[in-house]
Amino acid sequence: MGIRIAVAGASGYAGGELLRLLAGHPEFDLVAATAHAQAGRPVAAVHPQLAGLDLMLGTTDPATLADADLVFLALPHGESAALAAALPPAVRVVDLGADHRLRDADAWSRYYGGPHAGAWTYGLPELPGQRAAIAAATRVANTGCYAVATTLALAPLIAAGAVLPTDVVVVAASGTSGAGRAAKAHLLGSEVMGDLSPYKVGAHQHVPEIKQASGATSLSFTPVLAPMPRGILATVTAVPSGGADPREVLAAAYADAPFVHVLPEGQWPHTAATAGSNSCHLQVCVDVDSGRVIVVSAIDNLGKGAAGQAVQNANLMLGLPESTGLSVFGVAP
Amino acid sequence: MGIRIAVAGASGYAGGELLRLLAGHPEFDLVAATAHAQAGRPVAAVHPQLAGLDLMLGTTDPATLADADLVFLALPHGESAALAAALPPAVRVVDLGADHRLRDADAWSRYYGGPHAGAWTYGLPELPGQRAAIAAATRVANTGCYAVATTLALAPLIAAGAVLPTDVVVVAASGTSGAGRAAKAHLLGSEVMGDLSPYKVGAHQHVPEIKQASGATSLSFTPVLAPMPRGILATVTAVPSGGADPREVLAAAYADAPFVHVLPEGQWPHTAATAGSNSCHLQVCVDVDSGRVIVVSAIDNLGKGAAGQAVQNANLMLGLPESTGLSVFGVAP
Amino acid sequence: MGIRIAVAGASGYAGGELLRLLAGHPEFDLVAATAHAQAGRPVAAVHPQLAGLDLMLGTTDPATLADADLVFLALPHGESAALAAALPPAVRVVDLGADHRLRDADAWSRYYGGPHAGAWTYGLPELPGQRAAIAAATRVANTGCYAVATTLALAPLIAAGAVLPTDVVVVAASGTSGAGRAAKAHLLGSEVMGDLSPYKVGAHQHVPEIKQASGATSLSFTPVLAPMPRGILATVTAVPSGGADPREVLAAAYADAPFVHVLPEGQWPHTAATAGSNSCHLQVCVDVDSGRVIVVSAIDNLGKGAAGQAVQNANLMLGLPESTGLSVFGVAP
Amino acid sequence: MGIRIAVAGASGYAGGELLRLLAGHPEFDLVAATAHAQAGRPVAAVHPQLAGLDLMLGTTDPATLADADLVFLALPHGESAALAAALPPAVRVVDLGADHRLRDADAWSRYYGGPHAGAWTYGLPELPGQRAAIAAATRVANTGCYAVATTLALAPLIAAGAVLPTDVVVVAASGTSGAGRAAKAHLLGSEVMGDLSPYKVGAHQHVPEIKQASGATSLSFTPVLAPMPRGILATVTAVPSGGADPREVLAAAYADAPFVHVLPEGQWPHTAATAGSNSCHLQVCVDVDSGRVIVVSAIDNLGKGAAGQAVQNANLMLGLPESTGLSVFGVAP
Repeated sequence: MGIRIAVAGASGYAGGELLRLLAGHPEFDLVAATAHAQAGRPVAAVHPQLAGLDLMLGTTDPATLADADLVFLALPHGESAALAAALPPAVRVVDLGADHRLRDADAWSRYYGGPHAGAWTYGLPELPGQRAAIAAATRVANTGCYAVATTLALAPLIAAGAVLPTDVVVVAASGTSGAGRAAKAHLLGSEVMGDLSPYKVGAHQHVPEIKQASGATSLSFTPVLAPMPRGILATVTAVPSGGADPREVLAAAYADAPFVHVLPEGQWPHTAATAGSNSCHLQVCVDVDSGRVIVVSAIDNLGKGAAGQAVQNANLMLGLPESTGLSVFGVAP
Repeated sequence: MGIRIAVAGASGYAGGELLRLLAGHPEFDLVAATAHAQAGRPVAAVHPQLAGLDLMLGTTDPATLADADLVFLALPHGESAALAAALPPAVRVVDLGADHRLRDADAWSRYYGGPHAGAWTYGLPELPGQRAAIAAATRVANTGCYAVATTLALAPLIAAGAVLPTDVVVVAASGTSGAGRAAKAHLLGSEVMGDLSPYKVGAHQHVPEIKQASGATSLSFTPVLAPMPRGILATVTAVPSGGADPREVLAAAYADAPFVHVLPEGQWPHTAATAGSNSCHLQVCVDVDSGRVIVVSAIDNLGKGAAGQAVQNANLMLGLPESTGLSVFGVAP
Repeated sequence: MGIRIAVAGASGYAGGELLRLLAGHPEFDLVAATAHAQAGRPVAAVHPQLAGLDLMLGTTDPATLADADLVFLALPHGESAALAAALPPAVRVVDLGADHRLRDADAWSRYYGGPHAGAWTYGLPELPGQRAAIAAATRVANTGCYAVATTLALAPLIAAGAVLPTDVVVVAASGTSGAGRAAKAHLLGSEVMGDLSPYKVGAHQHVPEIKQASGATSLSFTPVLAPMPRGILATVTAVPSGGADPREVLAAAYADAPFVHVLPEGQWPHTAATAGSNSCHLQVCVDVDSGRVIVVSAIDNLGKGAAGQAVQNANLMLGLPESTGLSVFGVAP
Repeated sequence: MGIRIAVAGASGYAGGELLRLLAGHPEFDLVAATAHAQAGRPVAAVHPQLAGLDLMLGTTDPATLADADLVFLALPHGESAALAAALPPAVRVVDLGADHRLRDADAWSRYYGGPHAGAWTYGLPELPGQRAAIAAATRVANTGCYAVATTLALAPLIAAGAVLPTDVVVVAASGTSGAGRAAKAHLLGSEVMGDLSPYKVGAHQHVPEIKQASGATSLSFTPVLAPMPRGILATVTAVPSGGADPREVLAAAYADAPFVHVLPEGQWPHTAATAGSNSCHLQVCVDVDSGRVIVVSAIDNLGKGAAGQAVQNANLMLGLPESTGLSVFGVAP
């Protein structure tokens, strides 16, 4: 008899990826998956890739979920707090939404609007000391997808004094699943195929999260929608501080991290290599003209950027090896 | 200590997918992977999605391979026979190439040229009696990708007398990985994105294999290259014979097949739902105008169409449950 | 001072392509473009590719349109009849919708529902005698996109007795713009990229139109959604009747058609080569196994399949050379 | 009788786009198109989108080309100089290659290797004074594709003192046609679809050209290969100098430029909107966190980034309006 797991908000893309990972997890029993508009439909009707998974989508209410050992919340931003508050304290919760990521209530209100629900343990196990904190927590806020890609590239360099926190420029492109499954005309296949499209330029809501997690004090962050279903490629540049060698810093920071790979010199990350996996690929160099440090980071936004990381956090919270049920290897081509 | 596995021809797309599956297989130890031009390079340099797999590509020669319990051959057509002949009889072999699929030597010569190497046990476990035959064999010829998609849709209908074998029309579109990894100008991303392109119209080399495996006696088969990396969608039409109900025939044929899903009525297969999995999705109807039976079949050409099926066959040959180390669920979106 | 042109339903994909073609047409003055929900917005806000076109979308009402010499209707199916009836008889009308294509009222009701609005002159100039009929008409029903691709491949062969009309099997794949611009979840980029997805299998509403236009008496037609914004590839197979050579028939039928190209032997049509153009590419062979004649046809569904053909019809109706303002050449890669 | 035009290097992607534009140009007669390996083949066999263009590819030698009024060179880098030197001085030449773009011989040698062939008039008409210079020149060096996108975004801001030239960070993603038509494994459709892949990070050969053309003195430039055939999206960030308003500077700089559109506030450029056109779309804002100025620029790399701009330059050199035969409007979706 395994650990009892429930997923609230199982009809979206992150929810579907979670169900896929949970269905293949050796220690977890998926006991409930809930949704809003899709409640009452078979999971495989909503997620055709899960044909063969015999489960109905239930209604998202605390009674359905309270019976689980751990609940994943994959709800729209702003909907997690109320539901989490209605769950017994002993039920562990991993929130894939943004509600509990920020420690700064003002930043929350500025970018998301509405009252701040309070910060939970930040679910990025690769940050110093964070594995232990997550293992000890009953409430964990999963990292946002852009924040994962950027923070893994940047945080060790700032912490080690290898780059200055005062002038960080990031351009990050994401596959369309990062924009969610709601039907919107600008996300139609006809619009996104063959197209690169920047959005929320100059004021993206992930900025305060990235600053909080990475230590950057000034951050220019430009997101771009790319014509592919999955993947984030973040190009992070910063000014070197004349201290430690960036490559050595990254290699040391992730020496024991099963999912973060600093690639051999000369080999650059690309998103397809991480598709379907929980891995992050990194590479770094110093630009010959500007002298800036350039770090490139690739993840699957639904993997390490959402569902994969959520399972990694759940593993830690439940005392399992962090890579249980997760793949290091991407599905490519 | 697991079962010792080697892969010859590990640098191509089917080879890479094999390595990914083998690396996650609970009973197999990957002891050698060989290649031709890429020999001497790390696997992860040739297949970046396998970053973290610590293995060098060796040279493809019998001595390297003979030490394994089972060898997968993922070589260009025509190169398997000589290598297989040089391996000890006790070493089990699964050939992903075409060399040993056809029983008809004339058909071989007509479509492939050169002398026929002789037929091996045909590696499509879902055909009647084939699971046992594969389990008893030491040499198995993996089914071709188009043949998997078409045969699973068609063979039970012909066998049950639900459709006539005398007038089968198939149009099947494949993702580009089916065309291999050799650098050819017409396979460049710039050429294939945004494009549907038929090829080998009127005379494709899979025709005799599909006829042999499905029982069709007249087959019009038109393959189309589609702008996606993976997936085959086969649209199979045939004339009903007035006998059994096609949907019931398919449901009965695959009642115990873990990887073949006849979808609920009204839900049609699409390729993305099978990506990265070993599943085949099927649906069938009778066309209101022509009265023809239309079966649509979707697979991942690198999964059930190549590497996944090869592992399924290997599992059977080695006495393991056929789904060991394979996923029923696709990676989507 | 040019000919005065108006477009009703200018906010969709066919509408946008029409505006692009009209903006570059040497004899036409675009005097009004109307829409429903988007009325009051600048054209370039709704169609960013038309940045620099200084025009506001008006409301779709007869008064706005009656002042034009010719009106294009690019409305949802079922909405053209009422609007056209409200326009003065002297105003020429090209309807890109389905309302006036079918001569058979029963077939209309069966596939579209509701009362039949009556047939107009059928707008496929390449059919025998149709150029003159279009030139003499004030109301023309533009051909449906799948019907263009299939009819151009098939009609001359049936008319010449080269193939039998009694057993035609068509599988046709279309880019996503053919499914329109309305926001639907199954048309999201995340769903369609990397995916081939059949739909309306066994009963597509274009079947009666294709039969009417091509002369086929039995038609199995399976449409597939393909991961590209534009293009239709139709694979048409039929049984030869032992009469005329199919290739010679097609070459003769289109000897004087500026937009239909029977490619040199051995070169097969592919959709990207027709993107942005008003061309149709054709090739034909006899299948070695089944003996069926296979014709492959490629068009741009928004070009020859919609807006391009509409302009071609308008040119004929207004006494201009049919290729005025249209391109024979595709935009590729 | 029109102006006589020849194209050397007509078999690549830029060459094919040139032929398409020239075939539709009202004042130009395409008298010769030459190639290397493809010489002797019909143009439409090499560029299927040009079916209907009745022209054979000749051999690239001066005698074939000397008879034209203007020759476009679309050759690999390093091959233009020798051929141009063999043409009569009266024959006007537009070089799409890099050979004659740089004024700094050292920079040439550092990034391209080999001796420097000397600078020609720089073919970016939108730079101050450059229209007149191009009109007076008989030898013009077309701007590189990344340099077009970046320079149009940046040069007016630096010239007006709106941003500092000393800390410019650019991340630019390009469609795959920018990488050329040579068969390379990493450019296969299977590799590039679903993938974002940075390359030449830290040392791209366009850096000295962009610095020369834009006035930047320190430039971090990171190029990324994107899964689409065409288009460049450049995200350019720089530090404001407290002077003029960036948006007003750009609007004034391009008030009379037919192909550069500063979009209405709040509307951001995306590449698909420029496909097939000679347009560049721009937008600018000030980042709320970092205070950096962010300019985003979109072009078609084969249009304004190569063939379109080459025709624009040829028009100027020959006394025609600069937009003759070119489209402002993109082909989308």
